[in-house]
Amino acid sequence: MTRLHYAVDLSYQIDAPGADCVFNVQAAHTPQQLVVSERLNLSQPRALGWVDPQLRNRLLRLQALPGLLRLQYEATVDIAHHRAVPASLHELPIAELPGPVLPYLYPSRYCESDRLHAMAVAQFGRLWQGHARVLAIQDWVRQRVRFASNSSVGTTTACDTLASGVGVCRDFAHVMIALCRALNIPARFATGLDYGADPALGPPDFHAYVEVYLSHRWYLFDPSGTAIPMGLVRIGTGRDAADVAFATLFGPVRSQAPVVSIQSVAGSDGRPAELPWHTPEALSTDAGQA
Amino acid sequence: MTRLHYAVDLSYQIDAPGADCVFNVQAAHTPQQLVVSERLNLSQPRALGWVDPQLRNRLLRLQALPGLLRLQYEATVDIAHHRAVPASLHELPIAELPGPVLPYLYPSRYCESDRLHAMAVAQFGRLWQGHARVLAIQDWVRQRVRFASNSSVGTTTACDTLASGVGVCRDFAHVMIALCRALNIPARFATGLDYGADPALGPPDFHAYVEVYLSHRWYLFDPSGTAIPMGLVRIGTGRDAADVAFATLFGPVRSQAPVVSIQSVAGSDGRPAELPWHTPEALSTDAGQA
Amino acid sequence: MTRLHYAVDLSYQIDAPGADCVFNVQAAHTPQQLVVSERLNLSQPRALGWVDPQLRNRLLRLQALPGLLRLQYEATVDIAHHRAVPASLHELPIAELPGPVLPYLYPSRYCESDRLHAMAVAQFGRLWQGHARVLAIQDWVRQRVRFASNSSVGTTTACDTLASGVGVCRDFAHVMIALCRALNIPARFATGLDYGADPALGPPDFHAYVEVYLSHRWYLFDPSGTAIPMGLVRIGTGRDAADVAFATLFGPVRSQAPVVSIQSVAGSDGRPAELPWHTPEALSTDAGQA
Amino acid sequence: MTRLHYAVDLSYQIDAPGADCVFNVQAAHTPQQLVVSERLNLSQPRALGWVDPQLRNRLLRLQALPGLLRLQYEATVDIAHHRAVPASLHELPIAELPGPVLPYLYPSRYCESDRLHAMAVAQFGRLWQGHARVLAIQDWVRQRVRFASNSSVGTTTACDTLASGVGVCRDFAHVMIALCRALNIPARFATGLDYGADPALGPPDFHAYVEVYLSHRWYLFDPSGTAIPMGLVRIGTGRDAADVAFATLFGPVRSQAPVVSIQSVAGSDGRPAELPWHTPEALSTDAGQA
Repeated sequence: MTRLHYAVDLSYQIDAPGADCVFNVQAAHTPQQLVVSERLNLSQPRALGWVDPQLRNRLLRLQALPGLLRLQYEATVDIAHHRAVPASLHELPIAELPGPVLPYLYPSRYCESDRLHAMAVAQFGRLWQGHARVLAIQDWVRQRVRFASNSSVGTTTACDTLASGVGVCRDFAHVMIALCRALNIPARFATGLDYGADPALGPPDFHAYVEVYLSHRWYLFDPSGTAIPMGLVRIGTGRDAADVAFATLFGPVRSQAPVVSIQSVAGSDGRPAELPWHTPEALSTDAGQA
Repeated sequence: MTRLHYAVDLSYQIDAPGADCVFNVQAAHTPQQLVVSERLNLSQPRALGWVDPQLRNRLLRLQALPGLLRLQYEATVDIAHHRAVPASLHELPIAELPGPVLPYLYPSRYCESDRLHAMAVAQFGRLWQGHARVLAIQDWVRQRVRFASNSSVGTTTACDTLASGVGVCRDFAHVMIALCRALNIPARFATGLDYGADPALGPPDFHAYVEVYLSHRWYLFDPSGTAIPMGLVRIGTGRDAADVAFATLFGPVRSQAPVVSIQSVAGSDGRPAELPWHTPEALSTDAGQA
Repeated sequence: MTRLHYAVDLSYQIDAPGADCVFNVQAAHTPQQLVVSERLNLSQPRALGWVDPQLRNRLLRLQALPGLLRLQYEATVDIAHHRAVPASLHELPIAELPGPVLPYLYPSRYCESDRLHAMAVAQFGRLWQGHARVLAIQDWVRQRVRFASNSSVGTTTACDTLASGVGVCRDFAHVMIALCRALNIPARFATGLDYGADPALGPPDFHAYVEVYLSHRWYLFDPSGTAIPMGLVRIGTGRDAADVAFATLFGPVRSQAPVVSIQSVAGSDGRPAELPWHTPEALSTDAGQA
Repeated sequence: MTRLHYAVDLSYQIDAPGADCVFNVQAAHTPQQLVVSERLNLSQPRALGWVDPQLRNRLLRLQALPGLLRLQYEATVDIAHHRAVPASLHELPIAELPGPVLPYLYPSRYCESDRLHAMAVAQFGRLWQGHARVLAIQDWVRQRVRFASNSSVGTTTACDTLASGVGVCRDFAHVMIALCRALNIPARFATGLDYGADPALGPPDFHAYVEVYLSHRWYLFDPSGTAIPMGLVRIGTGRDAADVAFATLFGPVRSQAPVVSIQSVAGSDGRPAELPWHTPEALSTDAGQA
């Protein structure tokens, strides 16, 4: 079990006549991720919470008045990963997928799997099906795309990234998801914080990664290669970045860069923390069923 | 109340080694649409049904063996529309939208509302909010896009259609949805059969239309102008065409054109049927809540 | 695969000022039970349907006006049971039960498992856990309770039945459910039609039976011993009879006895029907997850 | 808005071979109740969380090993009640109730509304329908039942309490719920902490109260009259006490009395806290829809 603590500090200047805000920064409650403490501080009152029963995303909504809006949140979570031997994980025939998994076969705003079908089949169609094929897709993405900060914008899609050959974690995730779906492997987008990111990549920030449905569970993949999967804290999940922005602001708003941090902490029993490491096992924090 | 009967006949030649199939042709059970009879005939056994609890889509899945696959389905539905005076319908602030409605604010595969934001605000941002603004969007789409059979393909998006100026019902729907979302008005894609389509448009076919969330209900709009909203039977709904294909076939399949038909029928009490007509009222068949 | 057809005919005389009605007679859509055709005829219009997303119960609601109310319904269903070797089925520790299964551990109106705890532990606590223990409970119920038509009333509970030693199918089910829950085995009440009932028991009627959660699925048990489990068509499921009455009438109503029938029919391919038989296998029509 | 803080401290001695535990002590996330901070400390690891999507109950499950088990939890919540003029609240016809509300019309383990139907109709059937009738039921319960600590046991039902004329908060709630349901008014059981309880009633403890569905929302009632409705923090809700025990322990366990506390705290803006008071308004913290 891993115990991680993270903090998020968001600041906005809201102009008249105010703005509707949706935040998705709270740690998800999943069967493998237990929130043991959290603290939320909002400088404006009357926020409304909502938890998506399927995706477990925790949305916070607010009609912000003109002036400063500051959201501070911190959480400590215990993660007890479901672990599996990669070679034991297989792809499922579509007729055996649970109903709620089906939407993750279809193209979405930033993952145009319909346009990548022929290429994906040519490239990966003859590989042995299962976890190894998904790893092959991940490796291929890492070879084709180069990580560079600020190299993409909000409208950049998987096809755009394949064309430019450069992107940030969000773009690596979109390409990998699009390729999986093009091969009829359910894949979805996840956001969170990552413990253990290389400081050379810049200050800590929200991270985007991938969950792939194999053998009746969602397994973690980090196509950008910048995180340690065991050190990922899940915040949100959805079809792609359109579904899980950490903040969506509807109105005249000036934003400051978010300030985030994450560290490993000792358990309540005083034992030293188990630090995330690059395990060869496949990891999952959610079967995706209630 | 309107009583309508429709029939669907789908034929496929499945090649080795077989194909996974997902069909979405059954009439949705909504609070205002009651399925009074239906009949399904599948030439291959072992189909599995699943009903999406939020969207009410009824998916039929099958691992089809090589050979012929034929799906025949017919249903009779009673539709008792919720009717409202258009001028009474208002847009809702984002903080008041029910959680399950939020995804319909975000861009999706074929509705790139993020790319259309500036244009939509310039064009419609100063209009009085409410049903009239949505009608203005619908009228604008009808002026900018020309209906032409077979003028688009499966990967055509709202931006593609705005560029080409031509499309089919699916494309009209995508453009209208993208514009609504760009203005923070929740909008979704619906498929079904339409009673009363102009025979000059060709043989009866599946139809695509739009539902917009106003005053806590989903209201019907037919941006292509080819149907009578009161004559729409709902089959599926989703973010865009990616979610509600009437058939998705994973494997080597040769398809024949679907054969569909729809007619108005008399009620069980023998009274003549109430025929759909172009009412000025706003119509809804679903509040979108359980 | 078994193909069964059933029909239900309900008649009521509604007195002034009318009555609200809730019906639960339509065949459930489960992963193993596919409704291939159905027909509903209501003598009064404006009924509203609702499908419970967890339980799959299909409720039909109506504000009936004074006068006659008649509901005729018929359905043909294909049942492809999930089959398991009984000895392979185990009880699950409470910490491994899916969340939606937990309510079926608790006492309910007609299944006072809290009052039966000590007795159940004394009687069955030392038995080997698993399918065999559930069978032992079923056998014990059959020995202690004698079937007699019209021997119980709507308020009769499991404890009442254990005291009187007599009951109908509903009462056998309540006793078995209460005993299972007293031993921390999730159990629920199911209603439906049963093909193959002994004609000596009277005219065909709705049937009540039991589903027990073992090895991550709900398995069928017929404690009254009057049905062939393979011939059960599922209509509703819930905690006990309070949840799944075939008709609940709120207001001044005079009811006639329901007329029901069920038969086996040939498949669409013309093959003779597979008749239900007393298989030694454990049968399930629902994993209880979406 | 009211900001309240509560703390719960539970201690158990688990004997061999261990025990499965289900806890329901965490503050519910409702649209009107925002958890701004919380802290959970469990002396044994590997707990699993689950949130019921309909009821919002947050269940914590654990396979506890022999030895001490201690659960400490504290939370600060902001409650922004939905407020309504009581005279404006009406009862809904059954055909207009949302589907998920229907189960709260039916009898449950400790609320035998089926047995109380005739009495309830005789007593309250002629009263004007709406909030005033529900208040009349609450007043009647307070007159018939006397509060006395430790006067009931876990199997005590509404009918038992009406016979004995004595009970604790749980029993007052069960009687009021049973009478509402007997009159076709949906009612459910809620548990939580209550700020402002009379210290003469003993040390702070978990509280049980009632939610009644009127005009499309669940409104708070405190039939025992020992709490200030505005000071109720919601933990769980369900059909009756069977669904929302704060702790359910399956195995050999010796429990100590729970230690709980609650106080009002100042908001983050430093303003003094708004103290709960006996408002004449009707209060709701949940519409019961997603």
